Amino acid sequence: MTVFEKRLKNLLAAMEDAGIGAAVFSPSTDYFYLTGSARQPAQREAALLVSPERTALLLPGFEAENEPELSRRLERIPYSDLEDPAALLSALLPKSGRIAVGSEMRAKFLMALQQAGSRLSWCCADALTGPLRRKKDREEIRLIETAQHMAERALSRLLKEPVAGKSERELASRLMELRLEEGFDSVGSGIAASGPNTALPHHINGDRRVEKGDILMFDIGGLYRGYRADFTRTFAVGAVPEEFDRIYQIVLEAHLAGKRTARPGVPASQVDRAARQVIQEAGFGPFFTHRLGHGIGLDVHEPPFIVNTSPLPLETGSVFSCEPGIYLPGRFGVRIEDLLVLEEGGARSLNTLSKKLQVIPV
Amino acid sequence: MTVFEKRLKNLLAAMEDAGIGAAVFSPSTDYFYLTGSARQPAQREAALLVSPERTALLLPGFEAENEPELSRRLERIPYSDLEDPAALLSALLPKSGRIAVGSEMRAKFLMALQQAGSRLSWCCADALTGPLRRKKDREEIRLIETAQHMAERALSRLLKEPVAGKSERELASRLMELRLEEGFDSVGSGIAASGPNTALPHHINGDRRVEKGDILMFDIGGLYRGYRADFTRTFAVGAVPEEFDRIYQIVLEAHLAGKRTARPGVPASQVDRAARQVIQEAGFGPFFTHRLGHGIGLDVHEPPFIVNTSPLPLETGSVFSCEPGIYLPGRFGVRIEDLLVLEEGGARSLNTLSKKLQVIPV
Repeated sequence: MTVFEKRLKNLLAAMEDAGIGAAVFSPSTDYFYLTGSARQPAQREAALLVSPERTALLLPGFEAENEPELSRRLERIPYSDLEDPAALLSALLPKSGRIAVGSEMRAKFLMALQQAGSRLSWCCADALTGPLRRKKDREEIRLIETAQHMAERALSRLLKEPVAGKSERELASRLMELRLEEGFDSVGSGIAASGPNTALPHHINGDRRVEKGDILMFDIGGLYRGYRADFTRTFAVGAVPEEFDRIYQIVLEAHLAGKRTARPGVPASQVDRAARQVIQEAGFGPFFTHRLGHGIGLDVHEPPFIVNTSPLPLETGSVFSCEPGIYLPGRFGVRIEDLLVLEEGGARSLNTLSKKLQVIPV
Repeated sequence: MTVFEKRLKNLLAAMEDAGIGAAVFSPSTDYFYLTGSARQPAQREAALLVSPERTALLLPGFEAENEPELSRRLERIPYSDLEDPAALLSALLPKSGRIAVGSEMRAKFLMALQQAGSRLSWCCADALTGPLRRKKDREEIRLIETAQHMAERALSRLLKEPVAGKSERELASRLMELRLEEGFDSVGSGIAASGPNTALPHHINGDRRVEKGDILMFDIGGLYRGYRADFTRTFAVGAVPEEFDRIYQIVLEAHLAGKRTARPGVPASQVDRAARQVIQEAGFGPFFTHRLGHGIGLDVHEPPFIVNTSPLPLETGSVFSCEPGIYLPGRFGVRIEDLLVLEEGGARSLNTLSKKLQVIPV
């Protein structure tokens, strides 16, 4: 049994438990997880249909020959530009009952299915795929860890080049090149925030040039064989601004408190709280403006979310970020992010780069 | 009045005509069209709400400072990681009536809104934004034309380098570099199909190496300031295979028949038919396996679709592809694609590259 057959079997078992007659997925990470196809969404719809009766791919007819390996495993239902894919798919669904829909399906396609199947009720397939995808197997963890090390090497190489005088966009662009050289299949620009811009947790890189005395924050990832990297480091450039050392140590302590707390069975909320408490007790609670972390795998952000409102008990095999931050508006911000994998004995970091305060020479 | 204020005003007028109380858009090309923000979809939802009472952006709180220019024009509704954006947005919607939803909204978010507002009915906002976006203004046409010329220059530069012995992936990769050099903001791999692979209209580039006597097909585009390029050229490498010249001339004649037929007021179906008829009369009807073309602008594929089933009368200001093809399985395919803009006097091509049969020297 291939890994994809096993995943489809697990999905069908979860559907039976939940009383769901069929599930439908547009091209997405769920689609990749269940089929191995990295097909991207396009204006011509495609869909994976999973039901006890059949597992089939609805595809634009003239693309149906494109992934021969896939076609050997799964039934294909090709359609032409003169046909309506929503009508074709609707005809294959049960006449009544509950249908699960992949979270990434377009509203347009879902509304067309809803109109065609008025006696059906619709729910989000995340409740089915989430628990499966949360628990990574060895190969998945290996891919994430490999990607994370590739991204770390790219940052290490960047820091061997001069940063002072470079703009955020220039640094981000160089870091894209370096990550592609390290072997990523694709990369986004990531965050290269400098000076007061580091106080914006999701700063959009601009033309500000790095100078001595700046704080510099890099938050980068990348796509490697379907899986994602993600980590953040914050540096001082040439000199350590007032109070930076103290803030940095608080964030680092919060990070380590989160990591220590993460164990199998512990609710996600408790991990968020353990880290947050360190920051609150130091008096900076209002400046930690986001959740502690997010699961990662095929998506950059996926379950489990490490947030104060989540009672979800953590499981072995889950991979998630631990990324506390303190953001002082107009001054600077600090975020320290590793990816953690949960093992029997606790959380293991997938990073190797030091988290100690580092001053980049100018 | 800025271009965005004007577009929002036009949208509100269309909503009033259609009896729609509010419209909601996730980050998408509609969102860009209406706000000028190139925000991308992310796991934390964002939404543009448009109603006669208010125009507002629902945003993750810690990102709300990111686009200051936008915030001056539009009301912001920030939310924290402890809040539910679907619940917040639902509370701002009318209590009953019809709500239009941007076609790209995620099924997950739409289903959450549907659950919260059970007395509402939902429809796709394409019926509102489609007619607005179909009619491009001068600046939009200028951007598409500029992008198209950039892509053409990249292909011309590629063809000055040797192609024989290179793999499809290598050619596609080089063409990405050249397009970025020409000024695109981002590019996809496009299609670089060789030999019998040209018979697959949407071939996925592989490791096949180009050799003398091959047919070589390039279908490329790119993103430039929000707008898209897209064109296809088919070449012979070093020698002209049997029957290729004849097939090429049929496809070219079909292309020109489509272009000649496209005039204001003519139904899209008639343009498809005019081109298709040339291919059918030559006996290759079954080998032209897709519609003649698609509109293009912020999306690569958008209305008007040039397809046999569309009665839509073409309007001045619309930009669409004209891309007939003949695909002979196991042998070769030919596709010739320009972008056309519809003007009072007829269709004007946005391409400058020759469409004459060209043999690449080896």
